[in-house]
Amino acid sequence: MTSPALLSDDRLFPPDPTERAIARRLYAHVRALPIVSPHGHTDPAWFAENEAFPDPAALLIVPDHYVFRMLYSQGIPLESLGVPRRDGKPVERDGRKIWRLFAEHWHLFRGTPSRMWLTHALSETFGVRERLTAGSADRIYDRIDGCLRQPEFRPRALFERFNIEVLATTESPLDPLVHHRKIRSSGWSGRVITAFRPDPVVDPDYEGFRANVAALGEITRENTATWSGYLKALANRRQYFASLGATSTDHGHPTAATFDHSPGECEALFQRALEGPLAPEDAERFRGQMLLEMARMSVDDGLVMQLHPGACRDHNPEIFRDFGKDKGADIPTRTDYVRGLKPLLDRFGNDRRLTLILFTLDESTYARELAPLAGHYPALKLGPAWWFFDSPEGMRRYRETVTETAGFSNTAGFNDDTRAFLSIPARHDVARRVDCGFLAKWVADHRLDEDEAAELAVDLAYNLARRAYKLDD
Amino acid sequence: MTSPALLSDDRLFPPDPTERAIARRLYAHVRALPIVSPHGHTDPAWFAENEAFPDPAALLIVPDHYVFRMLYSQGIPLESLGVPRRDGKPVERDGRKIWRLFAEHWHLFRGTPSRMWLTHALSETFGVRERLTAGSADRIYDRIDGCLRQPEFRPRALFERFNIEVLATTESPLDPLVHHRKIRSSGWSGRVITAFRPDPVVDPDYEGFRANVAALGEITRENTATWSGYLKALANRRQYFASLGATSTDHGHPTAATFDHSPGECEALFQRALEGPLAPEDAERFRGQMLLEMARMSVDDGLVMQLHPGACRDHNPEIFRDFGKDKGADIPTRTDYVRGLKPLLDRFGNDRRLTLILFTLDESTYARELAPLAGHYPALKLGPAWWFFDSPEGMRRYRETVTETAGFSNTAGFNDDTRAFLSIPARHDVARRVDCGFLAKWVADHRLDEDEAAELAVDLAYNLARRAYKLDD
Amino acid sequence: MTSPALLSDDRLFPPDPTERAIARRLYAHVRALPIVSPHGHTDPAWFAENEAFPDPAALLIVPDHYVFRMLYSQGIPLESLGVPRRDGKPVERDGRKIWRLFAEHWHLFRGTPSRMWLTHALSETFGVRERLTAGSADRIYDRIDGCLRQPEFRPRALFERFNIEVLATTESPLDPLVHHRKIRSSGWSGRVITAFRPDPVVDPDYEGFRANVAALGEITRENTATWSGYLKALANRRQYFASLGATSTDHGHPTAATFDHSPGECEALFQRALEGPLAPEDAERFRGQMLLEMARMSVDDGLVMQLHPGACRDHNPEIFRDFGKDKGADIPTRTDYVRGLKPLLDRFGNDRRLTLILFTLDESTYARELAPLAGHYPALKLGPAWWFFDSPEGMRRYRETVTETAGFSNTAGFNDDTRAFLSIPARHDVARRVDCGFLAKWVADHRLDEDEAAELAVDLAYNLARRAYKLDD
Repeated sequence: MTSPALLSDDRLFPPDPTERAIARRLYAHVRALPIVSPHGHTDPAWFAENEAFPDPAALLIVPDHYVFRMLYSQGIPLESLGVPRRDGKPVERDGRKIWRLFAEHWHLFRGTPSRMWLTHALSETFGVRERLTAGSADRIYDRIDGCLRQPEFRPRALFERFNIEVLATTESPLDPLVHHRKIRSSGWSGRVITAFRPDPVVDPDYEGFRANVAALGEITRENTATWSGYLKALANRRQYFASLGATSTDHGHPTAATFDHSPGECEALFQRALEGPLAPEDAERFRGQMLLEMARMSVDDGLVMQLHPGACRDHNPEIFRDFGKDKGADIPTRTDYVRGLKPLLDRFGNDRRLTLILFTLDESTYARELAPLAGHYPALKLGPAWWFFDSPEGMRRYRETVTETAGFSNTAGFNDDTRAFLSIPARHDVARRVDCGFLAKWVADHRLDEDEAAELAVDLAYNLARRAYKLDD
Repeated sequence: MTSPALLSDDRLFPPDPTERAIARRLYAHVRALPIVSPHGHTDPAWFAENEAFPDPAALLIVPDHYVFRMLYSQGIPLESLGVPRRDGKPVERDGRKIWRLFAEHWHLFRGTPSRMWLTHALSETFGVRERLTAGSADRIYDRIDGCLRQPEFRPRALFERFNIEVLATTESPLDPLVHHRKIRSSGWSGRVITAFRPDPVVDPDYEGFRANVAALGEITRENTATWSGYLKALANRRQYFASLGATSTDHGHPTAATFDHSPGECEALFQRALEGPLAPEDAERFRGQMLLEMARMSVDDGLVMQLHPGACRDHNPEIFRDFGKDKGADIPTRTDYVRGLKPLLDRFGNDRRLTLILFTLDESTYARELAPLAGHYPALKLGPAWWFFDSPEGMRRYRETVTETAGFSNTAGFNDDTRAFLSIPARHDVARRVDCGFLAKWVADHRLDEDEAAELAVDLAYNLARRAYKLDD
Repeated sequence: MTSPALLSDDRLFPPDPTERAIARRLYAHVRALPIVSPHGHTDPAWFAENEAFPDPAALLIVPDHYVFRMLYSQGIPLESLGVPRRDGKPVERDGRKIWRLFAEHWHLFRGTPSRMWLTHALSETFGVRERLTAGSADRIYDRIDGCLRQPEFRPRALFERFNIEVLATTESPLDPLVHHRKIRSSGWSGRVITAFRPDPVVDPDYEGFRANVAALGEITRENTATWSGYLKALANRRQYFASLGATSTDHGHPTAATFDHSPGECEALFQRALEGPLAPEDAERFRGQMLLEMARMSVDDGLVMQLHPGACRDHNPEIFRDFGKDKGADIPTRTDYVRGLKPLLDRFGNDRRLTLILFTLDESTYARELAPLAGHYPALKLGPAWWFFDSPEGMRRYRETVTETAGFSNTAGFNDDTRAFLSIPARHDVARRVDCGFLAKWVADHRLDEDEAAELAVDLAYNLARRAYKLDD
């Protein structure tokens, strides 16, 4: 069955005719703006090697935990979706079978962001003009599969077609960044940059922490057996990342706690972290100290700092045991920014050389904590609605609860935070549409003039991200 | 004064003409569907005995804590509303006087769900065509009173007129279920089933807990002085409930905490619970352990498990002393599902034989905790907006915050959770209207196609509840 | 550039034509009602002395922490905005320069309540008909400056022009209230009353607490070195405030915790508080005990009690060190009303002689805690959306989350809570418009009849505040 509304030009605009007309006019200012993607998790190897993507299932389903966790929640085994097991036991490898299973359950995604971007990708990227059903599954599979074999569906071609101005990936300090070096030396004009994600070497609970710290010492030729050597190694590595285009660091902590211990306490804590597992409170103290150290280094080297706290990782031990991390079993928890960030803000909150972009999985903090903090401290900006809230309703709640206290200028624009490359145009388009719809309402009830809203629409879609992430240079 | 809008056909539909037209079309698919009421607190004696309801006040006001607590909050003594005192001191017994007092304060209910269902019941069930005021109070009282004397206003006749397909009540494990047996043996075709509510025998803080456990032993002929005998007795009693149609259990805990102690710890904790009052932490541990035991039994016997946590019961000691439990003084508190449920989910979260339906009084958990949990664990479903949130705005917030992460299929449809029999048609109608209005918005902004929304409307009104509560069999 | 929408007659009304038409009709009932302002922080000296306000910057920018903290968050030093330093070091004193700096950054305020009331004041009070920009800054400055020199822009004239029926200020128990006495003896008809704000003498962490308690003893000739003398002094001072028109007290605590210690414990705690700094838990216990004592005194003397908890004051130590309190660095925190207020409510929650009006900075408590509490306890009322939430979206969320459980009658109407005198008409107008828009939606979807909504609009704008604050007498 074909669907007349498969991708309406008015999608996500308010139904009221006055608001919709304004939203259309605002959207006309932003629809064709280049994509600025300062935070994400695509694989730089795609752009370094520029090889064809594998089959549709391997591209769109198998690696996407948003997609397979929804199917899993309805009783479909991950094995049948091709998600690899850690023990190497067999899982489905036939992309077509996986795709059919997915298509049969497509109705489960009604109303979800996954459905939105997949529909957008099918329609806009692959030219599919019929609805995905059990009946159309094979036809659509074949169409995508055929596309993927064409040169214009290789990563670099899609990057250009998607009109991406800059795309940041995220790497560990231990990563040699060979792909980024290869991209740079290839002569290709696409701007793909890295971001410094130090969790493996600053979180004492991270798998392999001690070995990672040792490796960090080897890479940087610093003595990471001492606190001062460890800090030097990190500063050194940040410098290396910056030399390959990085403008930001990214920190995925369980909480927003920060600490400001004395140098002696830091040294002692660090030595105990090197010796063996820390007690949970000490691990928390160490991580929180490292946020402060990272802020201090940001003041020095100018890298923008991002903090993504609040996920209870790997909530499901059976899934973790069988399939590993990032399998849709990370669950948000309450987060306290007001007390948590205070030690860091006491030190650097008034320092304009620092930009600290905050994200949350606890929407109750938007109006209560994050907007008041960002509406006061020069060092703070608010990142966009994140992860579970990177969705039309989530984005609307973000604007409604953040704007009146923080304004628009203390936000950092949109970022897609995705590992699903094909979702990038859709995600930015959704954000632009939702923001235009939001602004349209405020124009319609005379809170903003339309010329102001048009300026803001461009800021939200483009300028704020460039500015917050220092991408203008 | 008559009110043209006493019960508009368009009530609760979005005012925007586009959305309203869609909502009307969607509602046409669901308005006449039978009522599935898998969770509630009506009195099975009504359907067993089928006697006439007493006067209007005794039917609609005296037993409804939503109604009398609002009047109480504005300074009206509960005695004057006929709420019985525990000490037997006199309270108002004249139904007409109570009704007049209620009618004089009817304006206090503007905007509340109580006003909605009472208006619906007056209009649709009793044919009242004027607004309730001090002036109309007597006329309306007489009309209702006259109706209640007619055979077509007896419980079974109303059950049929309300088009109820199945109605679940809730009983203690100590209840002999004589009414349910009588209904079954009466030859009446109405499907009235029980649900297993074990709080009196699994909550060590429950009044009479020790005597209750002893009584449980007598009823089941198990030795409830030992942990294993106690568990056997519970399993036995669940079986008895299932034999009288029960498909579910219901658990009303102060928190969502669960525990997975060793058998030795369980035995020791149980013995101490039998000896005397437990320390609060131990009572919490015992209750939490019992949730895990109940889940284990559900895996065995297939009963669907419902968890309703988060009420601080009997917050007002004076009201509790004078009037007892369930008098409008239960106040919600913050609830932590992510850490609380982990021990239970570690054991049974991936087991498709378990269905655990979660409710909340803490809306901040919808998007942060409940939707991510239900959108991942096969054993979890989300119950509808509950108690204080069983209202148009509450239902809207539920859909807006839950759907994008959990989808529609991880929700369990509507249930009315009411002891007010006459409110049942109104409550289901409100839910259907609000859901159709919600879906209409998403059709109007092209997030859903209308044929999909029509399917979903039927799911939300009918199929999901039947499926989640295993009522199809 | 002139702006056609500088102040639209339809501002803040819903864009849907049906809702907007209803909102207009409802607003016609309330637009000209007198302003009842039962809680605020204007300076009584203005009305006692009736001197001209200084220049535009000193009136509108320098004292307004909402305004300068937004500019500060974007990197503008407070010194350049004329905010005085504690160390007396120079700050900008040229009002015109400050005004220009403000005008250049006016776009930062898009979508904020500050922008709304400033636009309203410029347009309605000063007759400005062009948009504020760098280009128009001087012209607008000159126009305001010229106005301020006219007698019709003196405080009393504006008070009358603003149609203020009653205006409450807030004073410390140590304040001799000379301005209020002067206003009373002046023969001027304006009703300006005080409110009793005892934080300086009941919060042991308040700067100068011990000296303040001693001063309280001197003023009242009670022995404030004993618990009983201290209580007598407070009761005495409340009486004095009441004699100058006060109908309320105001309490700005970090949490909502209350305590009900034995007299012996109170005496001991008080003695320790007099001796020196209390441990944080003891300071909390003392403050919480004092809330209970204040409630007890309210039962006796009839003063309405207001509780404003939840701000983490002076979060930014550098700002506090250099500029002092109330500089935009107070950040909300989570607040627990259910457990916190229980000791107080156990004592006085059912006592109709007490009116306790609750405010919050934690919106997650609206539906979960505050509406259920206010919808039950006769002593409780909910204050309006407060501080960061005194804004169109904040007010809308308040009504949407509070009304279905608490109704309208358990709320206390609007109050402006402002120290910005010129913002008062705008703030009340915004509240009236948002409430009319809210009611219009409920009329449009048939939850209310329009005549009911018209009554409610008047209640929300006028009657409820008069009644809750006992201003009718």
